[in-house]
Amino acid sequence: MDNRQQGAAMAELSFWYDFASTYSYVSAMRIGRLAEAPPVSIRWRPFLLGPIFKAQGWSDSPFNIYPAKGRYMWRDLERLCAREGLPLRRPSVFPRHSVLAARVALVAEPEGWCPQFTAAVFAANFADDREIAEPETLAAILDGLGQPAESVLARATAEETKAALRAQTENAMRLGIFGAPSFVVGKELFWGNERLDDAIALAGAQR
Amino acid sequence: MDNRQQGAAMAELSFWYDFASTYSYVSAMRIGRLAEAPPVSIRWRPFLLGPIFKAQGWSDSPFNIYPAKGRYMWRDLERLCAREGLPLRRPSVFPRHSVLAARVALVAEPEGWCPQFTAAVFAANFADDREIAEPETLAAILDGLGQPAESVLARATAEETKAALRAQTENAMRLGIFGAPSFVVGKELFWGNERLDDAIALAGAQR
Repeated sequence: MDNRQQGAAMAELSFWYDFASTYSYVSAMRIGRLAEAPPVSIRWRPFLLGPIFKAQGWSDSPFNIYPAKGRYMWRDLERLCAREGLPLRRPSVFPRHSVLAARVALVAEPEGWCPQFTAAVFAANFADDREIAEPETLAAILDGLGQPAESVLARATAEETKAALRAQTENAMRLGIFGAPSFVVGKELFWGNERLDDAIALAGAQR
Repeated sequence: MDNRQQGAAMAELSFWYDFASTYSYVSAMRIGRLAEAPPVSIRWRPFLLGPIFKAQGWSDSPFNIYPAKGRYMWRDLERLCAREGLPLRRPSVFPRHSVLAARVALVAEPEGWCPQFTAAVFAANFADDREIAEPETLAAILDGLGQPAESVLARATAEETKAALRAQTENAMRLGIFGAPSFVVGKELFWGNERLDDAIALAGAQR
């Protein structure tokens, strides 16, 4: 491998997100713009926080378990979305089951339409308060993206995709991921929307 | 109250910190510089995370209870300190008992030497790995600041000061504080070192 290839391989950032995660919404909406200059290749890594939280002894979002933390988060998210110009409607269900959406995202990833699908699902959950756990919601999003909803959903719920999502979540744990959004650049892990800029800068510097 | 007085009264930021808190160290070391322009008056609010964590069901730092979170925090702190030019030596005891140092800080606050004392205690804990729970460590710091160590420590351990620290911690809970560092500007709460700049900006804009 020559230096140029090695350099190109390193200008890469893995974006680990859960469709139920509030701060992942903000990162998903700004990562595309941030990755433009310096050009950083984003690897989209949908995963499930649920099993990771369960391993930490939590059966719900920490924002529900710890009310002061939850109250703060919703206000902080309001301020953050206002600053980023992002619409925000507090979801009537929180956290929403994100497993089906994550499976669809796994189908989307190798086909190149994962960024658009991801943005649309996050908008449905946090801007429009739609139930992303329902196949109908995802089918409407797929239609909007010009994807064949029925066959995509069939592939998303195939045993192979289910296993792939379990493997992806186990991989997150192996990487030391304990929350979302998380960003991995080389061996460096960054947690939280406010570390996205640092992660992009590191990836850019390693080209 | 005329507008000018009201404006002056609002250009104020309360800085809530625990001497055992790693990210509070970083904030304590940069808040003075950040508050210079626009001039923002800092209210130093030492408190104890212990009772707040206990109310959340934790008998230790979450960075010890959740190992992945702890491993991440120490690496993140390294990166952060490197960027801020802050020395860092991982404390051989974590978290250190911060109650005595907090009581001394309460004595210092109305006398105007709380900023210097706070910086010295954080440096002892996180740059020099000294045991801030020991009166000898705090006495040496007080000597260095030209404060009468014996009489200050006597006042710090008086019943009145102990009660004041309990009241301060209860006040933190009433404000919705669940971690440190936290910053309060008017009715807005900010949590975490990376929100300090936002808090300063808000305070500055309200002058």
